[in-house]
Amino acid sequence: MSSQQQRESVTTRRLVDLEVDECWTLAVTRPVGRLAWCGAQGPTVLPVNFAVNGTNVLVRTTAYSEVSRECDDSPVAFEIDDIDTENRAGWSVLMRGRGHLEYGPAGGQEPDVWLSGPRSLRLRIEVTEVTGRRVTTPE
Amino acid sequence: MSSQQQRESVTTRRLVDLEVDECWTLAVTRPVGRLAWCGAQGPTVLPVNFAVNGTNVLVRTTAYSEVSRECDDSPVAFEIDDIDTENRAGWSVLMRGRGHLEYGPAGGQEPDVWLSGPRSLRLRIEVTEVTGRRVTTPE
Repeated sequence: MSSQQQRESVTTRRLVDLEVDECWTLAVTRPVGRLAWCGAQGPTVLPVNFAVNGTNVLVRTTAYSEVSRECDDSPVAFEIDDIDTENRAGWSVLMRGRGHLEYGPAGGQEPDVWLSGPRSLRLRIEVTEVTGRRVTTPE
Repeated sequence: MSSQQQRESVTTRRLVDLEVDECWTLAVTRPVGRLAWCGAQGPTVLPVNFAVNGTNVLVRTTAYSEVSRECDDSPVAFEIDDIDTENRAGWSVLMRGRGHLEYGPAGGQEPDVWLSGPRSLRLRIEVTEVTGRRVTTPE
């Protein structure tokens, strides 16, 4: 590799947009996403396990959580990413929509929750906008 | 391991709070964090490279970015985590504070930005609140 090529391989990492279908396909490969909302204390971001059902993202929660207090019938965002530290690369997906607090079975796949304890509520995010980006890696 | 122990090892994953010092120590071990704010389109979350200077988080950006349009002199959050899929564990840190758009050298460590191209602006997040949590793993 010439020094010119080396220089270019270092300097040509850019963001490219992902198609919506690719965003959903990538999202479900990750066990954890990040739920964000604008609450009483300002913007809040928490990692959570999730499942996807159609164009809904499902998150389990408890009755006394910040999520149940602040996300029902409110605008929320859900971010999923995969960061490749070694190659200084990765992708991320940002979903926006409305949160709906629900009881009872989802009638579909449930999130595989890592934490112990009952989580009787479900936050269903009705996703209305999906965008994604990937860091291009040098050839 | 008895079946009782096996059952407990599966069912005893809980969140424990991290000390503030530990949050900062963990945060700087990661190359990417997630900047969140409440913008015109609702909550927004984007992964970004960052550096820490005292109790400030520094992010590079461009003049025409959403970050520069929406985060100056505004409440923002910064989330850092490390998810251990194999062990169904991990930690996360949530910082809250105010964004300040700045020009010129930071006078300290600059973020190691993976993407190409000039980023003449810096978003300095003046962090005023730090919380963190870790998933306890079974013994």
